[in-house]
Amino acid sequence: MIKSKGYAAYDPQSDLAPHDFERRDPDPTDVQMEILFCGVCHSDLHMVRNEWGNSEYPLIPGHEIVGRVVKVGEKVARVKPGDMAAIGCMVNSCRECPSCKDGLEQYCLNGATLTYASPDPKGPGFTMGGYSNNIVADEAFILKLPNNLDPAAAAPLLCAGITTYSPLRHWKVGKGSKVAVVGLGGLGHMAIKFAHAFGAEVTLFTTSPGKTEDAKRLGAEQVVISKDENAMAAEAGKYDFVLNTVSAKIDLTPYINLLKREGTMVLVGAPAEPLPLGVFPLIMQRRSVAGSLIGGIRETQEMLDFCGQNDIVSDVEIIPIDKINEAYERMLKSDVKYRFVIDMATL
Amino acid sequence: MIKSKGYAAYDPQSDLAPHDFERRDPDPTDVQMEILFCGVCHSDLHMVRNEWGNSEYPLIPGHEIVGRVVKVGEKVARVKPGDMAAIGCMVNSCRECPSCKDGLEQYCLNGATLTYASPDPKGPGFTMGGYSNNIVADEAFILKLPNNLDPAAAAPLLCAGITTYSPLRHWKVGKGSKVAVVGLGGLGHMAIKFAHAFGAEVTLFTTSPGKTEDAKRLGAEQVVISKDENAMAAEAGKYDFVLNTVSAKIDLTPYINLLKREGTMVLVGAPAEPLPLGVFPLIMQRRSVAGSLIGGIRETQEMLDFCGQNDIVSDVEIIPIDKINEAYERMLKSDVKYRFVIDMATL
Repeated sequence: MIKSKGYAAYDPQSDLAPHDFERRDPDPTDVQMEILFCGVCHSDLHMVRNEWGNSEYPLIPGHEIVGRVVKVGEKVARVKPGDMAAIGCMVNSCRECPSCKDGLEQYCLNGATLTYASPDPKGPGFTMGGYSNNIVADEAFILKLPNNLDPAAAAPLLCAGITTYSPLRHWKVGKGSKVAVVGLGGLGHMAIKFAHAFGAEVTLFTTSPGKTEDAKRLGAEQVVISKDENAMAAEAGKYDFVLNTVSAKIDLTPYINLLKREGTMVLVGAPAEPLPLGVFPLIMQRRSVAGSLIGGIRETQEMLDFCGQNDIVSDVEIIPIDKINEAYERMLKSDVKYRFVIDMATL
Repeated sequence: MIKSKGYAAYDPQSDLAPHDFERRDPDPTDVQMEILFCGVCHSDLHMVRNEWGNSEYPLIPGHEIVGRVVKVGEKVARVKPGDMAAIGCMVNSCRECPSCKDGLEQYCLNGATLTYASPDPKGPGFTMGGYSNNIVADEAFILKLPNNLDPAAAAPLLCAGITTYSPLRHWKVGKGSKVAVVGLGGLGHMAIKFAHAFGAEVTLFTTSPGKTEDAKRLGAEQVVISKDENAMAAEAGKYDFVLNTVSAKIDLTPYINLLKREGTMVLVGAPAEPLPLGVFPLIMQRRSVAGSLIGGIRETQEMLDFCGQNDIVSDVEIIPIDKINEAYERMLKSDVKYRFVIDMATL
């Protein structure tokens, strides 16, 4: 076993605190990584506080992991010691169901093994995430990180990046598409970068007038303040695709109305409560509302390669790990541009 | 002007009553029809009672119209006097917007002219529907009725038929598709017939165990009682397509859960209130919820021709027009198998 250290939650009420634990020694198909940086996702906070009701303690969060390979099992061919590598939200899946066969492990019908707080089929116990100094995972779930990307700024690509890249690709956003991005946070800022990189014309919809300049710097051509009903009405029926990154309980109707005939709004934020869905705006122009979850391993690698080729990373604020609890409080107030990343050398 | 008679509502509270009015003489592109049968759609009752807030009185409902051409304008080439013909939910549209150019007049961006209670660009006043002895409309909105179809049983094809045919075609339901139809009423019974005729394997989801035998006769291979949580759970993830014909306020989540990965549920019922939409079931399998509205004129003709070739009509109960108010009360109790059709000879 490998002696490891990280920051863990022991219960839903307490702050994260230093925690010693053990990881398994790599088996023949495993890769052992030294973790250099780990992004801070809103899901981490939901899980730390057991807001989805499925947390297991002690819980070490973190699924935007970038590091260096230090050891590989004898059958591993994908990476070698010294390589820069990454791990996202999953570390395993059944690999046999139709979704896994299609390279869509995130939709594994037997339930993918998540990077933290999942029962680990390769053990021991539950998976422990990236707020730690090392990680061991099967090579099938290890991503290669392009060498030209800044490793700290690349970390959020593993969740915020793929969560927005995948639906933009699946719904074929590209040159000539008019895309609305709703919300400018960790997900929204990546959505703007990707949609712009794919050649689409991007409009940000936000409640905050203060975000206009930033949105334009990130690649938006226009910013609409979503509290302004007249401005919203003026945009009705103009968009091929709406990527809604807001995870709060909001009325979907004004955003559905942005869509052209047969347009789709994709939800990537996951509010626990049901949202009110107006049916008339769907029926009247044959519009759709859909959901999308991260991306498969093949597509995540494609996304990282695309980022390498196009110099795309996240806008990040690097923090030492002892500031993580403070970072959570700031994240709740949207006081971050646009993702915290933990420098694991501070552990 | 043509002296005409029908049954009209004079206000939202009163019963329908006999009403004399005038229609325009046919212009060069108009067709004048003698109405033989008119189906009774739930929308008629919503409009009579002004439940959607846009009714205009006196209001003559009816948009499932079958009759015989009696006179045509000099430029009309599509039909001639003596032909059996039909009119559905629309009698005009702008014909210039992208939707109209695509043959999707139901999504006309300038608003299609509905068969009743719409301002009529060809006048006079507001359109008057099919609970009457005749109608005049532009030939572009006249459908040809295959001669082998029973005219009374064909009337509901013009709304209940096309409303279910169109989404099944648009979402490419066919051989190998597993389709769930939710609700067995005027729309649901046509959905079963069409999905079965397209080669799909059809399951009816209903709250009424008493409908099992009928559903199987109509073409369903299986019936699931939607109040039975275990039965619902056993069907989760099995369906490519769900056609939801229920217009009451229901929780969509159990029906979204029926869908396979990337499956779509289409709503064709239009509840006035927003429905609660659980976001997790969409996200977890990249599922969609969409809406669909009747069909364009081209597709409506295609549907009628398909019905002619495959001997498909509605199951109807023919009533004299003086029973219309009673029929509304029975319709509210779902006491009809599965569509009332008014025999206009009784007027």
